[in-house]
Amino acid sequence: MWLIVTYDVNTEDKAGQKRLRRVAKVCKSYGQRVQKSVFECSVNDMQYEQMKRELVKEIDKACDSLRIYRLIGARDCVIDSFGVDDFVNFEEPLIV
Amino acid sequence: MWLIVTYDVNTEDKAGQKRLRRVAKVCKSYGQRVQKSVFECSVNDMQYEQMKRELVKEIDKACDSLRIYRLIGARDCVIDSFGVDDFVNFEEPLIV
Repeated sequence: MWLIVTYDVNTEDKAGQKRLRRVAKVCKSYGQRVQKSVFECSVNDMQYEQMKRELVKEIDKACDSLRIYRLIGARDCVIDSFGVDDFVNFEEPLIV
Repeated sequence: MWLIVTYDVNTEDKAGQKRLRRVAKVCKSYGQRVQKSVFECSVNDMQYEQMKRELVKEIDKACDSLRIYRLIGARDCVIDSFGVDDFVNFEEPLIV
């Protein structure tokens, strides 16, 4: 399943800057950064639950926002990308 | 159709700061801001094409990133939200 993870972490203090790094770190372990606070992840159900637990543990629910969107269907059919795009789809055959 | 619009605009110069404002303004006319650079929009096919044209016109493809994701199925079934969430679903009955 493809997921879009987006987050806004309040970085007004050091603790927030630390939370931002830790949230990004968790996201990196499950997928690719496509924008500053947007990751695309391809995970199974178990990984999804695990990732959710890890991310929820890192945010401060009082002042941060975390949204996870599940994409249904083939990834390329539900995404339009314009401008800078460094995404690499490792699920597609790599032509060398 | 529900859309997630996410963008990274390079704001190192005044022109970029102006692009950021204009991109947000277009998004506001089609939906709700749910995070700093993330909007959720409920649009029909025609509005979608129109919104895409307007947004693509505002970004600088060389240094900005714009991604539009189409959500398939009921919105509430494909979104997990944690922490701060000011989204109001105007498509659901308002209980007063």
